[in-house]
Amino acid sequence: MKFREIVEQLADTIVTFQTLDEDLEVSGIASVEDAEPGTLAFIEGEKFAHQIESTQASALILPNDETLQNQARERGIATISTQRPRELFARAIALFYQPFRPEPGIDPKASIDPSARLGQGVYVGANAVVHGGVELGDLVCVHANVVIYPGVKIGDRTVLHANSTVHERAQIGADCTIHSGAVIGAEGFGFVPTASGLTRMEQSGYVLLEDGVEVGCNSTIDRPSVGTTYIGKNTKIDNLVQIGHGCHIGSNCALCAQVGLAGGVTLGNNITLAGQVGVANRAKIGDGAIASAKTGIHQDIEPGAVVSGFPAIANSLWLRSAALYKRLPEIHQTLRQIQHRLNDRS
Amino acid sequence: MKFREIVEQLADTIVTFQTLDEDLEVSGIASVEDAEPGTLAFIEGEKFAHQIESTQASALILPNDETLQNQARERGIATISTQRPRELFARAIALFYQPFRPEPGIDPKASIDPSARLGQGVYVGANAVVHGGVELGDLVCVHANVVIYPGVKIGDRTVLHANSTVHERAQIGADCTIHSGAVIGAEGFGFVPTASGLTRMEQSGYVLLEDGVEVGCNSTIDRPSVGTTYIGKNTKIDNLVQIGHGCHIGSNCALCAQVGLAGGVTLGNNITLAGQVGVANRAKIGDGAIASAKTGIHQDIEPGAVVSGFPAIANSLWLRSAALYKRLPEIHQTLRQIQHRLNDRS
Amino acid sequence: MKFREIVEQLADTIVTFQTLDEDLEVSGIASVEDAEPGTLAFIEGEKFAHQIESTQASALILPNDETLQNQARERGIATISTQRPRELFARAIALFYQPFRPEPGIDPKASIDPSARLGQGVYVGANAVVHGGVELGDLVCVHANVVIYPGVKIGDRTVLHANSTVHERAQIGADCTIHSGAVIGAEGFGFVPTASGLTRMEQSGYVLLEDGVEVGCNSTIDRPSVGTTYIGKNTKIDNLVQIGHGCHIGSNCALCAQVGLAGGVTLGNNITLAGQVGVANRAKIGDGAIASAKTGIHQDIEPGAVVSGFPAIANSLWLRSAALYKRLPEIHQTLRQIQHRLNDRS
Repeated sequence: MKFREIVEQLADTIVTFQTLDEDLEVSGIASVEDAEPGTLAFIEGEKFAHQIESTQASALILPNDETLQNQARERGIATISTQRPRELFARAIALFYQPFRPEPGIDPKASIDPSARLGQGVYVGANAVVHGGVELGDLVCVHANVVIYPGVKIGDRTVLHANSTVHERAQIGADCTIHSGAVIGAEGFGFVPTASGLTRMEQSGYVLLEDGVEVGCNSTIDRPSVGTTYIGKNTKIDNLVQIGHGCHIGSNCALCAQVGLAGGVTLGNNITLAGQVGVANRAKIGDGAIASAKTGIHQDIEPGAVVSGFPAIANSLWLRSAALYKRLPEIHQTLRQIQHRLNDRS
Repeated sequence: MKFREIVEQLADTIVTFQTLDEDLEVSGIASVEDAEPGTLAFIEGEKFAHQIESTQASALILPNDETLQNQARERGIATISTQRPRELFARAIALFYQPFRPEPGIDPKASIDPSARLGQGVYVGANAVVHGGVELGDLVCVHANVVIYPGVKIGDRTVLHANSTVHERAQIGADCTIHSGAVIGAEGFGFVPTASGLTRMEQSGYVLLEDGVEVGCNSTIDRPSVGTTYIGKNTKIDNLVQIGHGCHIGSNCALCAQVGLAGGVTLGNNITLAGQVGVANRAKIGDGAIASAKTGIHQDIEPGAVVSGFPAIANSLWLRSAALYKRLPEIHQTLRQIQHRLNDRS
Repeated sequence: MKFREIVEQLADTIVTFQTLDEDLEVSGIASVEDAEPGTLAFIEGEKFAHQIESTQASALILPNDETLQNQARERGIATISTQRPRELFARAIALFYQPFRPEPGIDPKASIDPSARLGQGVYVGANAVVHGGVELGDLVCVHANVVIYPGVKIGDRTVLHANSTVHERAQIGADCTIHSGAVIGAEGFGFVPTASGLTRMEQSGYVLLEDGVEVGCNSTIDRPSVGTTYIGKNTKIDNLVQIGHGCHIGSNCALCAQVGLAGGVTLGNNITLAGQVGVANRAKIGDGAIASAKTGIHQDIEPGAVVSGFPAIANSLWLRSAALYKRLPEIHQTLRQIQHRLNDRS
């Protein structure tokens, strides 16, 4: 694709651009470190200015910064400047690449219950199993070997990747992506201690995903005994995440890999939980809060808070305590010296 | 279902009940917070008395407590009182709801090796694969797209959910549930460091699950190089749990989501490991012990102990140490002030 | 198999052997604790000498240590002595046991796109799906219900276990093992914050596994927006591990269960990450480094370092700090006593 075609296609968010070669051909997209001649890469900010000196990219997306533009020009690199380089880079990738999406149609090896209802332009791959009463919206894409239990509803354009499973009565919105191996709506971990040991409490509720939710590979979202496990609009869930029965998660949250939410956890909107964070039963986390990696949350967290550690405390305090943790041997030594001094005196 | 029918069905564990409307119709089961008129909910104890004032439920399961009963009667709510409200609630749910269980029969798209032996009333779903020498007991339910490797034995009434996999020679008892995506009996992580790098040690052992075991979605239980990986009767394993090769787990344990046991770990009976707990190679945990969330266990744990933290210590001590951890900056400051005072004096 | 046949087969690494019964028949391999009469077990070193007194094994693999040999002879146990008992034990297991490997051939229920190219002696199981442009090397084994997206290349002798999924354009070397439920090459967790919330950045890169890599059950390795996620030769990955988009991992590493690497992490060669270790975005870990279980790595780690804790510090320091952590109540008490003493004096 010509550089000038890229500029045309992304014009609405470009502030300025420059190229020495009007006919510059861009062969693909690359990271600034690994870029080969002919490719387009991006730099997020001033901090990465040194990469302009070393990159082999023929074109760069830059923040709107004259110094960076000049630096690139001197190396003969074409530039596109924008307020939001990462966003423009994402759009540039999409000009060159679209993920595999099979043509609409039902594979002859799919098993679809006669009572299921399918919208227009649906794809159902080989060995996918669609049980009774399932409803698939328009343009839904069910990849090979997916299993959908009875009574599930799936909104328009949602994609279910190979080997994922959706259990009974789950409701999945439009424009969702369920990645390979994810399991939506299985029985929550609900047992009652009885005289004969732990006895299953039937999980009669269901899972509800609003529009635009992504669920990562091999992640699990359980249904509750009564009511719903709820994931709000546009929330993104990474791989190997566990969402316990009866959780209620707001919109636009990001749950990174291996996060675990116990039962009945409540998350507001715009929350970020970094990798391997755990949240205990029924804890509530306010809008916009952030938990750094491996944080263990046992209690409610205020909106906007940034927390770390286990048990979770304010990130700023945690940084100071963690720095002193490794000085505990020295602190202990000092304390003993003081004791000796005092004992010597008395 | 009429309220009085529910009372009849659960009569054996009801202490007393009351209703102003003999013909009260119960439309379903709900949590006390989300209950709509017509539904039956439950309250576990006195602590939740305030919920009687706000719930929309038409009927409540209560502990045997006259104050609570009166409180409900004043709001016109029918009540069922019992010694064990949670257990009764579980039974009430089961009156209204049973999970999806397909009718016995072999789907024409299932692949069953001629040497496999199937009991009475077995279900094998579409694209399920049953290899040579497998034995399935009576009423076993193998959902769609399950794969069972050669030589596996599965006891009566056990359910294998869609997309789970059982590897060679695993033995699964009766009344077990293997949830979607779980992998039972794959090769343990056994390698020998040799001159040419890490070399696989073949895993010739097998996994043995006693009766009544549940294995959560996408959990993994590996087989060992020799001998067995053993899970005792009625032990319940949540989602995304890792059980290493050669572990020996007693009966009636509860392993919550994302727990990880390294190789050769021994657990007694009635143990609870909360979410994201890790247990190191060959550690032994005594009967009835409890580890709170994210605990890291490197050493043996006494029966009945309650442990927390990483490395694990007594929970009571951990609570005090964790409270002081966040006061480390203050402790450090105090220590410096004392040093200054002493230096000023001398 | 006769004891003397075992000796013949493993002769190249045996230093010496002894048996009272020239015709000793070995029925199988066992662990030294669980061994029954007739079996062959092993002892790794002197430290386990007491097990020679109690084992029921009829034959033992021992380190080359005369005391141990004599001890065994006195109990009438045949012995094989070697410099590397564990390695010999692994080879002995392989004499008795080989994992299930189906005969070459294409199951009639497999779905193979006409544009896929298959080598000699390939097995493709029931309901496996091989999309367009896929290349499978000689003797590749694709178990039942595996799904391979378009453009994937898989090297000779590689095994894909049931219900695993390989996404578009992944390149997998020779002699690799992909265990059940693993997902290779799915879209990385890449989103751009925009006015309308988190927006997907297409992941146009791919995953590259060198020869001899193992990927454990239900582990996930994501592809990046541009470039590759790279796993070096002979690296072994346990179950439920997350490898984020754009990671670069060297050769001969061992990543234990539930390890999580965020995006863009770089690992050198011969690195060991124990269970539940987490590594933050773009951290770099040097050759030969070791992180003990549950370590949280936020910063670069030097080659050869042994680190522990969260945030990660030198293991030797962590052991001392962790020992003092549980003494924090006592330390705090001492500090208060000193304050009182000083206040009383002044």
